[in-house]
Amino acid sequence: MGDAPRKNPSDFLGNVLGKPVIVKLNSGVDYRGTLACLDGYMNIALEHTEEWVNGQKKNTYGDCFIRGNNVQYISPLRQ
Amino acid sequence: MGDAPRKNPSDFLGNVLGKPVIVKLNSGVDYRGTLACLDGYMNIALEHTEEWVNGQKKNTYGDCFIRGNNVQYISPLRQ
Amino acid sequence: MGDAPRKNPSDFLGNVLGKPVIVKLNSGVDYRGTLACLDGYMNIALEHTEEWVNGQKKNTYGDCFIRGNNVQYISPLRQ
Amino acid sequence: MGDAPRKNPSDFLGNVLGKPVIVKLNSGVDYRGTLACLDGYMNIALEHTEEWVNGQKKNTYGDCFIRGNNVQYISPLRQ
Amino acid sequence: MGDAPRKNPSDFLGNVLGKPVIVKLNSGVDYRGTLACLDGYMNIALEHTEEWVNGQKKNTYGDCFIRGNNVQYISPLRQ
Amino acid sequence: MGDAPRKNPSDFLGNVLGKPVIVKLNSGVDYRGTLACLDGYMNIALEHTEEWVNGQKKNTYGDCFIRGNNVQYISPLRQ
Amino acid sequence: MGDAPRKNPSDFLGNVLGKPVIVKLNSGVDYRGTLACLDGYMNIALEHTEEWVNGQKKNTYGDCFIRGNNVQYISPLRQ
Repeated sequence: MGDAPRKNPSDFLGNVLGKPVIVKLNSGVDYRGTLACLDGYMNIALEHTEEWVNGQKKNTYGDCFIRGNNVQYISPLRQ
Repeated sequence: MGDAPRKNPSDFLGNVLGKPVIVKLNSGVDYRGTLACLDGYMNIALEHTEEWVNGQKKNTYGDCFIRGNNVQYISPLRQ
Repeated sequence: MGDAPRKNPSDFLGNVLGKPVIVKLNSGVDYRGTLACLDGYMNIALEHTEEWVNGQKKNTYGDCFIRGNNVQYISPLRQ
Repeated sequence: MGDAPRKNPSDFLGNVLGKPVIVKLNSGVDYRGTLACLDGYMNIALEHTEEWVNGQKKNTYGDCFIRGNNVQYISPLRQ
Repeated sequence: MGDAPRKNPSDFLGNVLGKPVIVKLNSGVDYRGTLACLDGYMNIALEHTEEWVNGQKKNTYGDCFIRGNNVQYISPLRQ
Repeated sequence: MGDAPRKNPSDFLGNVLGKPVIVKLNSGVDYRGTLACLDGYMNIALEHTEEWVNGQKKNTYGDCFIRGNNVQYISPLRQ
Repeated sequence: MGDAPRKNPSDFLGNVLGKPVIVKLNSGVDYRGTLACLDGYMNIALEHTEEWVNGQKKNTYGDCFIRGNNVQYISPLRQ
């Protein structure tokens, strides 16, 4: 995490805004796309969204609103 | 997301009001229809609603009120 | 939704009060009956209630109080 | 519902106090008995309680306190 | 319930304090013992606790603190 | 419970601070160790922690922070 | 726990900031990495993150934001 120093996890999330991320849901499904924005409930808006299940791309959705309480983790997508 | 600039996910949802969307529930079932309105709890009213399970249309309901806490994601339906 | 104009999902529900509806629970069971009343927690009182499982009528209950947090969706029953 | 007119589901429940009811839990188990009292969280005290599983009587408990957040529905027991 | 008159379920629970009870959890496991005390969240302290699974005694714990949100029902243990 | 008189379950927990306990989680896994401290959400810090699954020791962790909402029960460990 | 004396579990967590930890989720998956920071909801930011399933390393993520309500326990990683 060579970006700005971070004191709490929200700072971490601030650092990945506008960048490609993986969003893993409790159901085990991954959503990959550009993190457009998110709010305090971890509701997420992704752009250019892809749906991955067990390592295979299943769908593309373009824009996608993901409800926060299903999110397990968010991580920058390595290019 | 070539629409109005968005700062939080609610703006994203505002942009798809009145448009055809896919609403995926935690149970894995999709509901497709026109997003008539929604509230802060993510409760959703759809019009011309279709119920899809594993990529197959199972039912049509016309109007449908979907309770927010079961929603996994909402995405514009590509025509 | 050719009824009164609606701004939020509660208006939708107001429109189906006193009318036959399907109430689908998270468990997958449908309850069909006349929507007598409901409150802000989506607790529902149905009259002339039928219990349907996988498209088959299993029970009739007359009056039935359904707890809101199990509700997946509510939709007008087409005659 | 030929009893007193009801405006919200709690009125419905008020009407069945002291009467035999079925209480179905999310687990699918039914508890049948006299509805002694209940509170705003849907916590329920039943008297002369019977436990039914898949249509078969499994246990009798006399008095029984049932925690509200497991309740799926409550319905008058038809004699 | 031939004890003191009761207006809400907490009164019922007050009546069984210090008495042998069955505490059934959502997991289906029963805990039997003397109801030492409980609080508003239904957290329970039992004494001389036995753990029963499918009608068979599996463990004895002496004292046991049970977290309220897993409780399905509480009922006096018939001697 | 021959210790100090107790009026609510927290007193019970106060009595086992610094003592060996079993912490059973909703997942069915047991964590055994010395109860270092806990807070109002039932978050628990254990020392010399062992992880037991189906009666078999699987792991030792030394210190371990357990999140409260997964706790099913806490009981003193009999030596 | 030979570090600073601790009165509540948050002190325990304060002691492992900046150190390698195991974070076990309710799903059974382990995430191992350096605990960069966490907040009052147990949301966690890890650095140099590895994903382990059934004792096997499956993925590496570098930075990772984990949502608190899925966390089962956090424990220092023994070198």
